[in-house]
Amino acid sequence: MNYRFCRQALRIVVIATCVAMTMGCTQRQDAGESGGTRTAERATTAAADPLPSWRDDGAQRTIVEFVQRVTDAHGPNFVPVSERIATFDNDGTLWAEQPAYFQLAFVLDRVRTMAPEHPEWKTTPPFQAVIENDRAALASMGMPELMKLIAASHSGMTTEEYAGFATAWIDTATHPRFRHRYTECVYQPMLELLAYLRANGFKTFIVSGGGVDFMRTFSQSTYGIPTEQVIGSSVKTKFEMQDGKSVLVKLPEINSIDDKEGKPVNIGLHIGRRPLLAFGNSDGDLPMLEYASDGSGPRLALILHHDDADREWAYDRDSHVGRLDRGLDEARARGWTVVSMKNDFERVFAFQTTP
Amino acid sequence: MNYRFCRQALRIVVIATCVAMTMGCTQRQDAGESGGTRTAERATTAAADPLPSWRDDGAQRTIVEFVQRVTDAHGPNFVPVSERIATFDNDGTLWAEQPAYFQLAFVLDRVRTMAPEHPEWKTTPPFQAVIENDRAALASMGMPELMKLIAASHSGMTTEEYAGFATAWIDTATHPRFRHRYTECVYQPMLELLAYLRANGFKTFIVSGGGVDFMRTFSQSTYGIPTEQVIGSSVKTKFEMQDGKSVLVKLPEINSIDDKEGKPVNIGLHIGRRPLLAFGNSDGDLPMLEYASDGSGPRLALILHHDDADREWAYDRDSHVGRLDRGLDEARARGWTVVSMKNDFERVFAFQTTP
Repeated sequence: MNYRFCRQALRIVVIATCVAMTMGCTQRQDAGESGGTRTAERATTAAADPLPSWRDDGAQRTIVEFVQRVTDAHGPNFVPVSERIATFDNDGTLWAEQPAYFQLAFVLDRVRTMAPEHPEWKTTPPFQAVIENDRAALASMGMPELMKLIAASHSGMTTEEYAGFATAWIDTATHPRFRHRYTECVYQPMLELLAYLRANGFKTFIVSGGGVDFMRTFSQSTYGIPTEQVIGSSVKTKFEMQDGKSVLVKLPEINSIDDKEGKPVNIGLHIGRRPLLAFGNSDGDLPMLEYASDGSGPRLALILHHDDADREWAYDRDSHVGRLDRGLDEARARGWTVVSMKNDFERVFAFQTTP
Repeated sequence: MNYRFCRQALRIVVIATCVAMTMGCTQRQDAGESGGTRTAERATTAAADPLPSWRDDGAQRTIVEFVQRVTDAHGPNFVPVSERIATFDNDGTLWAEQPAYFQLAFVLDRVRTMAPEHPEWKTTPPFQAVIENDRAALASMGMPELMKLIAASHSGMTTEEYAGFATAWIDTATHPRFRHRYTECVYQPMLELLAYLRANGFKTFIVSGGGVDFMRTFSQSTYGIPTEQVIGSSVKTKFEMQDGKSVLVKLPEINSIDDKEGKPVNIGLHIGRRPLLAFGNSDGDLPMLEYASDGSGPRLALILHHDDADREWAYDRDSHVGRLDRGLDEARARGWTVVSMKNDFERVFAFQTTP
């Protein structure tokens, strides 16, 4: 376990505490049609204006002008389709990340769901604290305790079993503030941007600190992004035979933390070229934005600034989740596009009927 | 350095020796049009019969019937486009691998090319042996020596610098037996198969023990496979700033050996679903073929059997390179399709004008 991972895990502790303190994580019982599928369709059927949830001026103009420039076959900045790679962070860029990363809620819910099969957890920390929702104990939980929770809830099963659990959760769990499924807490302007880029020959990728197997359960239905274009944090897996059938078993051992420098490293490993466009929202995205920007020819780096407490949240330099500090300075220095949620988003979520 | 990697490296030693003993690795000076691009185009422009270099009966029929079954929207075995994943080994499956893996020739050539910048190599083993083409010394070379060669030739540079070196080599180096560029030593029937699958909604991937950065320099032009659909062995990389520009530097440390169990593990990491079709040629491909076969619904696993010493090579159970031993038994037991190069390929290489 290396230093970077420890640092990451420690940050997660703060977040986990936040989750435990603030989230109800109620499961919606009447899970019917996937909300994510609905919103994805809404994005792709926008006919005349491909970006209706963006306000006309500002960031939208920058994006459209960039796309026109690199797709103009007769212009000096034309980029062939094969090089039109666009990478997006997920937490805080495609969907919300407050009051805590959504996947953390899944970890805690998963432990509670598994509890009946583990009667010993009732008296075993840290499981006991999760089961009893013991806020004091959760608040004082350290890294080793959190690792036990993640190991118990995210490993020791096949990738297909894990996908089943994660899908069942994502289909029913709801966000504590918005009371909508998490896959409905995606930013409508970003769904439109993904569809707009794809319509212009871009291949869209997620490059996120979130767990790759977790995100893959909803990336296609929510974002229209297939599993093979999702890059995320991962545990090691082991190939083995179970009852005569080959499976991949998730191990309680980190393979990659897809955050900070891990993002361009994984872009190199999985994609093998610099993104033409990269979109993030926190300091954890800076290396990815730098890597995209430093390619030859025109490049577009964008940062979503959460400055809209009414419709979503307002946070940046001092936030525990999705801190954006050095990023604001570097965006100014490098001329990156800072997208203001308040000013650039005509609408934030599809479920907010009035903008 | 773990056991599996040591075993792999030891196997490479045998091969490296073989390379040194048998290959001239002359560089063609008049490198003009890419032979690879030509052959890829030839494959995709085949109009009436999409698989003209396959003989009509046998394996071709199995492939066509399978593709018709999974693409028949009204049939019971229909598979949506998003799940039409096809994975191909490279060495011995898409291009030849005799008398030794082509990338090994690059490693030795690279050391010779770099030698003038390293005058100390003239008297430093194992570089001295490579520079002097000292067959006795090369034949006795052990794993630590080979690792020094790979570390010197495949790390300590940015991924973009490496791509430049590899491209320059692949554009000019020629195969010692066929006297054609390596990217022309690809199997014409396999190019046609790749194009046929893509025309039927499949996404084609390379999953090979070869170096991922090496293969990515020719995957698009030779196979029509973009870099992000190439999975291979890799070294770790480091994100850093060089002269104010962000780069990925290749480190002399293994990240992943994409062979045997490493293939399904990397398929899980990079693709996130079981292949619908998998094609290999050696025991190193068995876990990938098993992983594909064990998915639900119809699956197609294929093994290319090198049984054609006249047009290519004949080798299987006892070969140092691309050994196919357990695979022949398992193919029979599981009902996999064994493709006979001699009987199923109407033509092997595009440059062989008479079949």
